Amino acid sequence: MLKPGATIGILGGGQLARMLALAAAPLGLKVHVFAPAGDNPAFEVAGAHTVAAYDDEAALAAFAAAVSVVTYEFENVPAETAAFLAARVPVLPGPRALAVTQDRIQEKTFINAIGLPTPGFAAVDDLATLEAAVAALGRPCVLKTRRFGYDGKGQTLIRPETDLSQAWEAVGRQPSILEAFVPFLREVSVIAARGASGDVVAYDVCENEHRHHILAATRLPATLGGTAAHAAIEHAARIATALDYVGVLAVEMFVLAGPDGERVLINEIAPRVHNSGHWTIEGAETSQFEQHVRAVAGWPLGSARRLGRIEMSNIIGDEADGWERLVAEPGLHLHLYGKAEARPGRKMGHATRVFPG
Amino acid sequence: MLKPGATIGILGGGQLARMLALAAAPLGLKVHVFAPAGDNPAFEVAGAHTVAAYDDEAALAAFAAAVSVVTYEFENVPAETAAFLAARVPVLPGPRALAVTQDRIQEKTFINAIGLPTPGFAAVDDLATLEAAVAALGRPCVLKTRRFGYDGKGQTLIRPETDLSQAWEAVGRQPSILEAFVPFLREVSVIAARGASGDVVAYDVCENEHRHHILAATRLPATLGGTAAHAAIEHAARIATALDYVGVLAVEMFVLAGPDGERVLINEIAPRVHNSGHWTIEGAETSQFEQHVRAVAGWPLGSARRLGRIEMSNIIGDEADGWERLVAEPGLHLHLYGKAEARPGRKMGHATRVFPG
Repeated sequence: MLKPGATIGILGGGQLARMLALAAAPLGLKVHVFAPAGDNPAFEVAGAHTVAAYDDEAALAAFAAAVSVVTYEFENVPAETAAFLAARVPVLPGPRALAVTQDRIQEKTFINAIGLPTPGFAAVDDLATLEAAVAALGRPCVLKTRRFGYDGKGQTLIRPETDLSQAWEAVGRQPSILEAFVPFLREVSVIAARGASGDVVAYDVCENEHRHHILAATRLPATLGGTAAHAAIEHAARIATALDYVGVLAVEMFVLAGPDGERVLINEIAPRVHNSGHWTIEGAETSQFEQHVRAVAGWPLGSARRLGRIEMSNIIGDEADGWERLVAEPGLHLHLYGKAEARPGRKMGHATRVFPG
Repeated sequence: MLKPGATIGILGGGQLARMLALAAAPLGLKVHVFAPAGDNPAFEVAGAHTVAAYDDEAALAAFAAAVSVVTYEFENVPAETAAFLAARVPVLPGPRALAVTQDRIQEKTFINAIGLPTPGFAAVDDLATLEAAVAALGRPCVLKTRRFGYDGKGQTLIRPETDLSQAWEAVGRQPSILEAFVPFLREVSVIAARGASGDVVAYDVCENEHRHHILAATRLPATLGGTAAHAAIEHAARIATALDYVGVLAVEMFVLAGPDGERVLINEIAPRVHNSGHWTIEGAETSQFEQHVRAVAGWPLGSARRLGRIEMSNIIGDEADGWERLVAEPGLHLHLYGKAEARPGRKMGHATRVFPG
């Protein structure tokens, strides 16, 4: 159990690390952010930072010596980096969560192995296995690289007319996964935290709207029956427990219509705080960021009680130019991430509205 | 109107500056803290800081050149410092607010001049004027230094048996004020913000409990009739407007029983965010810290709507050792200021509880 005054190390210097730092401070915990050179908005609110590559062992060793625990804001932390740090200081969530979630085949295999449903999938290693997989799963279907994909990068939709050798080129001829196309009603996520003592606290189910593969908006309560909502939360809790997870995770799911009512299939696990949980800053009794800090510090988790009806919108690219209108809207909670450049598709901030009821 | 990415300079590196910095970040505004050497918990969350004395003109000039506006977390900013900076960059709240509130005689004279009530008072410059003032105001009464008093420092109670020459020694034979003793029912404060365009937004009246001259707890709603509450808020708004104030201020008042119901007398003005407004972080739609940042940035003010019944308790001195119990209390919002040493009487943090209704 960390004492106030202790330092939490965070790998990655983006907006998630920034909001973790902003949540750690009121708890009396310090933050040290480790990130490669670049635009690192978390540095602005962190008491200490290191600019170095993730394979710079001297920098990693000094970082490990300066902190009491290491966590991360992104799932693509190199396994060698995590192992190097874990030999020196606790790394939470643990290496297993990283290993499972960095590879889409491992991830879905793990999910199925603990008895939870995913869309159909198959490993693709070359054009021949792609052809066989498409024949098995049918068209349309989605080809994605096994590793390092996010926000729609490294994936391509295979339509009835798509030439498979072109699709294979499109993902860079890398080890990939073919996923069955799911005719979902909507996308939801569950943000849950698991504490050091094994207790799990989940937030209400979030309903998510994506545009161009990027989260555009999250709303609560989700349009979802009680049975499906209960299942979604149970799924997230089972995943957290099976991974012996410590921290906040997000589980993205598809909601499908079925003969016996709605059912949920698991799409993806993010072993970190998540964009669809940003509403918790004002909309829940404890934010996902404070919750994650509490978990990795070994502190008791806070209440995940929702405080109202929620609408969270991302501010993407040049939408940030509209800040003047946003700050003038009564009741709107603006979060700008302090990024220098508003590139297309770049998450520049978000806005949360909490309504009574 | 500051644009996101602009930098706000803050004089003072304590918990108020720290919470201002934590509120500025989500708005995309950077913070540069200027403070003399010492324990400066605000540095931990500020993108930039300067360690220098308040009369170090080279450091002040560099600071002024690095920021778009200067504000402060304490009212005892030396007048020369404020003037030096104001010649280079906007200083908000303006020099008049500092001049009026740094001197208890000027402060009460100003309050009376705009038609608002204070306890009786008289200037004391030597033992002879002290004797005359005590004769006029009666005993008990309170002798305070005109300048640089806070948390009960620089003041002494004059009882029926008190020797006046000893009282005069107790305040260091400094220019002082004698204040009539007020048999108040309770102490309250109003936190209000005035924007650059002159609009005033006030929070609900806070009821304050002091122990050993230090704020121990704030509760809302205050035990106060509607007429007196309305008057208290009107008083704060009138003060803000008369000072042409920009930013958050706190007006401390006494509530007295009177033949026609409760009435309020003004005790003190704090030209800054205030301890009795810390509950607004979770208990109001916009915190006093965000409100102050919005005001000095020239942005529209946010809503001051209260979100529930409030209890805020300060964590003073070794009470901070009880952090483990506090973090385990469901629904309690802990704020530790990251101070290195828990000296007696030192404000180490606060805890806020928000209850429905």
